Amino acid sequence: MGGVDGSFDNWVVMKRHIYLKKKTLEEAEAIVSEVAKLIRLETETIPVIQSLGRVIAEPVFARISSPPFHCAAMDGIAVRAETTYGATEESAKTLILGKEAAFVNTGNPLPEGMNAVIMIEDVHILDPGRLEIREAAHPWQHVRAIGEDVIATEMVFPENHKITPYDIGALLASGYSEVNVRKEPRVFILPTGSELRDPDPASAGGENRGPGIVEYNSYVLSGLIMQDGAIPVRHPIVKDDPARIKKALLSNIAGVDLVLVLAGSSAGSEDYTRSIIEESGDVLVHGISMMPGKPALIGRIKERPVIGIPGYPVSAVIAYERLVRPMLFQSLHVTVPERRKLRVSPTGKLPSKLGTEEFLRVKVAHVEGKFFATPLPRGSGVITSLTRADGIIRIPSLSEGLAENEETEVELLKPVEEIINTVVMVGSHDLTLDILSNLLGKIYPPIFFSSHHVGSLGGLLAIKKKFCHIAGAHLLDPGTGEYNFPYIRQHLKGIEVKVIHLVFREQGLMVRQGNPKKIRGLKDLLRKEVSFINRQKGSGTRILLDHSLKNLSLDSAQIKGYEKEEFTHMAVASAVASGVVDAGLGILSASKAAGLDFIPVATERYDLIIPSSHIEDEKVQKVLETIRSEEFKAMVLRMGGYDVSRTGEELTE
Amino acid sequence: MGGVDGSFDNWVVMKRHIYLKKKTLEEAEAIVSEVAKLIRLETETIPVIQSLGRVIAEPVFARISSPPFHCAAMDGIAVRAETTYGATEESAKTLILGKEAAFVNTGNPLPEGMNAVIMIEDVHILDPGRLEIREAAHPWQHVRAIGEDVIATEMVFPENHKITPYDIGALLASGYSEVNVRKEPRVFILPTGSELRDPDPASAGGENRGPGIVEYNSYVLSGLIMQDGAIPVRHPIVKDDPARIKKALLSNIAGVDLVLVLAGSSAGSEDYTRSIIEESGDVLVHGISMMPGKPALIGRIKERPVIGIPGYPVSAVIAYERLVRPMLFQSLHVTVPERRKLRVSPTGKLPSKLGTEEFLRVKVAHVEGKFFATPLPRGSGVITSLTRADGIIRIPSLSEGLAENEETEVELLKPVEEIINTVVMVGSHDLTLDILSNLLGKIYPPIFFSSHHVGSLGGLLAIKKKFCHIAGAHLLDPGTGEYNFPYIRQHLKGIEVKVIHLVFREQGLMVRQGNPKKIRGLKDLLRKEVSFINRQKGSGTRILLDHSLKNLSLDSAQIKGYEKEEFTHMAVASAVASGVVDAGLGILSASKAAGLDFIPVATERYDLIIPSSHIEDEKVQKVLETIRSEEFKAMVLRMGGYDVSRTGEELTE
Repeated sequence: MGGVDGSFDNWVVMKRHIYLKKKTLEEAEAIVSEVAKLIRLETETIPVIQSLGRVIAEPVFARISSPPFHCAAMDGIAVRAETTYGATEESAKTLILGKEAAFVNTGNPLPEGMNAVIMIEDVHILDPGRLEIREAAHPWQHVRAIGEDVIATEMVFPENHKITPYDIGALLASGYSEVNVRKEPRVFILPTGSELRDPDPASAGGENRGPGIVEYNSYVLSGLIMQDGAIPVRHPIVKDDPARIKKALLSNIAGVDLVLVLAGSSAGSEDYTRSIIEESGDVLVHGISMMPGKPALIGRIKERPVIGIPGYPVSAVIAYERLVRPMLFQSLHVTVPERRKLRVSPTGKLPSKLGTEEFLRVKVAHVEGKFFATPLPRGSGVITSLTRADGIIRIPSLSEGLAENEETEVELLKPVEEIINTVVMVGSHDLTLDILSNLLGKIYPPIFFSSHHVGSLGGLLAIKKKFCHIAGAHLLDPGTGEYNFPYIRQHLKGIEVKVIHLVFREQGLMVRQGNPKKIRGLKDLLRKEVSFINRQKGSGTRILLDHSLKNLSLDSAQIKGYEKEEFTHMAVASAVASGVVDAGLGILSASKAAGLDFIPVATERYDLIIPSSHIEDEKVQKVLETIRSEEFKAMVLRMGGYDVSRTGEELTE
Repeated sequence: MGGVDGSFDNWVVMKRHIYLKKKTLEEAEAIVSEVAKLIRLETETIPVIQSLGRVIAEPVFARISSPPFHCAAMDGIAVRAETTYGATEESAKTLILGKEAAFVNTGNPLPEGMNAVIMIEDVHILDPGRLEIREAAHPWQHVRAIGEDVIATEMVFPENHKITPYDIGALLASGYSEVNVRKEPRVFILPTGSELRDPDPASAGGENRGPGIVEYNSYVLSGLIMQDGAIPVRHPIVKDDPARIKKALLSNIAGVDLVLVLAGSSAGSEDYTRSIIEESGDVLVHGISMMPGKPALIGRIKERPVIGIPGYPVSAVIAYERLVRPMLFQSLHVTVPERRKLRVSPTGKLPSKLGTEEFLRVKVAHVEGKFFATPLPRGSGVITSLTRADGIIRIPSLSEGLAENEETEVELLKPVEEIINTVVMVGSHDLTLDILSNLLGKIYPPIFFSSHHVGSLGGLLAIKKKFCHIAGAHLLDPGTGEYNFPYIRQHLKGIEVKVIHLVFREQGLMVRQGNPKKIRGLKDLLRKEVSFINRQKGSGTRILLDHSLKNLSLDSAQIKGYEKEEFTHMAVASAVASGVVDAGLGILSASKAAGLDFIPVATERYDLIIPSSHIEDEKVQKVLETIRSEEFKAMVLRMGGYDVSRTGEELTE
């Protein structure tokens, strides 16, 4: 990222970098593992009870045995087994309390000379001084021998073992109240960028407050660093000024093990990271053949690794996970935990650039026992492509991508159980789906709801290909005026489905508040000074538009922007709200959410189409229960533009 | 657990409990899920940057779009696409800077009226005021549209979503600096037991300081509670006195969501938990048909769940994981994370009690692509059966156990990669194996070493059954005086193996310091006042003993304790050190570690036996490199009793 100043001087005076010969990811990883050796963590002695998650710095040999003495494993009496020999059901034996027997509770040491315990249930109390037994004890019965758990001097944990909650018990049982562990690596995070502002009101000394784009990469990375067992040390944002960045870096490097410089590592005019590192140390890698994350940089200053982290959030995360995480684990001498992997089939072709290792964020659907992957937006600026992702598919640099249904491996970001508990809907977008998703998540144990918006026809196609449990559609048949059924007959031949009505909703033209262009209906879209934004082909809204234009004998070719497509109502609303276009067709709820004015065009029916093979699925039943609930209907009504009078009904032709 | 006072009064005056009709685990789990509803967590608003791992309490709808404006996706010039139409290689177009074009860096907002970006590489600077382009731009090229990542008003996260590091970015990008989350459940932990002492020197107010068994269950549970997203609130140890326990419980219950009373829940005379809960609330479950964990108790006081946690450490952990963990996750409305599961084959029969759900801790070996499970000690007092375990096999109550090689499922406690990176040795015990294991763990990435001690012959059997990579043996052939090879010929017919020499070591009689019984050699074992402890049949040490006795024409039947077997040198040493027996046969290093005197009997050869099919395995090669290293030999020599002059050599017949 760079400054906001678009003046010429700023450009011609700055030397522009070109990437060093780009490295492959494998080459970069080899360099990472060398550079990681610069990190030499000291050790420290800490209380065992505060050692959870820490890494043991030297082998631990038990100082004491556990149990530290022979002890009773049951409540009962301690005896010397030999004394009890001969006792049987027929011939009971009497023991003198205090001499031949002593009461013990579980965990009590055996009194001197005793070597067995008889369970209290098998002891008959004759009087305060005498007990009777009807079975002999054998030596060491119901006795926990000294060292049953831990024997003094044996190795309890080797060096480089990461301490679990269970281990805290074993350490304490072995006579340790303190343990020698590796210090946690301290990672200095230096966010840079004149256009950024700090989200933390408490962050003192930051140069960037007030308006601007909120800086969040440093906090995402801080979270990852903490999860990886290290300590993030965040510096306030520094403006794009090489002197200030250099000063912040050099004056803080002494107290940390590793440095991350955020943004400024690509080849732009205000990307200073490389020259700063070159002035004070070495740049080993600049540019890696991976996507996202290409502009990453690996260097070294004062015997510490310095990593240039790209400014786009997904690039920043991928660069962290591929380059920084391995260094941290290597410095702790612990293996990087691997993510669970699954075999999945792409729901469509996944092209990828030859020569670039691509990390593709995907949604994973589990339908009829098979796992499917659908890509999320590839833009490295789209952090929600990570928060919404179920996993990451890695497309090797030697591949040009994957064909539809070409099985591949996905690294999961979520537990597989969550994916299996997810109802997958594909089809048209509607704002009530958010309400449905939220209500499902409130059930315990929760059902998750994932909706992928590819338009109504896309939903029917996904049903046909068995990629989803439910399709959402509002497809008007221009010939009959009927909704959905004609399309189901045409596209889902041989597949038995149920049609469950979701909502009636108002579609109309969304225009800026006050309707500055005085748009009264579809006819006004043909006016020269009016710009429009369309929905994608195959969407119900597009079909509605085309149908309505035809009814009014209006020529779509005369609409300015008819060819520019968006995929959701909110994207259209947002384009209108921001002034990019004057009008778009969409639902009233989207219009209201974006603060727009609305000119009604039609009321339409939005249904859920569910293959009969899924209708008995417990998860799908929960979806139906939810949309039939009063809570759901009330929340939908509050959004405006909806009619829920028949919501949840099964419709038939 | 109970008091140490073994007097009679203590017993007869106390009412002894019997378990309520024991519940199956399924019944108990159903009750747990009802009782969990008592926990109603409040919500709180916290800074997003401190929200990692917290659970969102209400759906989050984006307050702003991200990016908040159309912005440049590349460094270059912003233009209005229409202005550039007509520019080609043949017919360049000149743009006036400041009017028709403006420099922008990645992330900068597009100036008013501009709708495309041309990459700086494609811009030719004519002079400070004029630029030349040779290709037209199309509208919106290299532009990140407003809302590309997040569109204002759309739902970013539903209620009950657990916040990841990525999510912190999406929340900040959506205009949130604070977020409404569920408070973390507070879990009150009340350790009880007069025999216990507090390991924490800083723990104020504890009743149990000084000598006694260290109380660690509360700290193991605290670690688990923290990992599960809740807050442990530990009370100092309270003696076995119902009035004090009751007071500690009732005076703290108001500020917590859930109460764990540690120990005192079984049916012993000093087990007060049940009566205390009955006095102030209800007991719903007392006794569950599971092992470990049977004495667990589920109750309710003042509308809060109270769980009686058994005193044995493994029982405590199992009771926590089966009963408490589900309550905590249910109260947070988050699904319990499931452990990774694997199919494994038991290396031997695993009998189990009908009617009891058993949780068996096992080591998992990965040999020739197959996973094998070997049980660890079943005693519920053995915390190291958890710290050493790779996983847990659950044997249902309707099963009487598993046959050898009957495939079953194991829940993993460790990453499967760690199991796959583990060299598995089965056979005789030797203290140098700890050194080997520790040195292997120092390599990066580490190789793990697991040794299972079943005696030398057991090791050969494990090779035959392909349960391990390496056997460790010191088997003397009485006929020839030769080590190992005669046994390999006999037991491993048809399996090609390499024999790598590990160490020569001294075997001898271990006796208490000062040798009070004046034992000079094996002959003295026959004396009436001398007691002995033996090693198990099939162990090299046992064979050495029998061979030596025969050479001296001594009758083993006359040795007191010849029939009592232990499985390791340290267990024998520990029995001698504690005064349970007077002598045992073992290696000098064990004798020294336990502070015993040593009467040499023989020097023997300990070898590693490795199937040729494993010798090229990289992990096995690392093992060989390690034992051939000077560091290993030096550490072995420091232990005493070893000769490393031929360590690492391959031996042939």
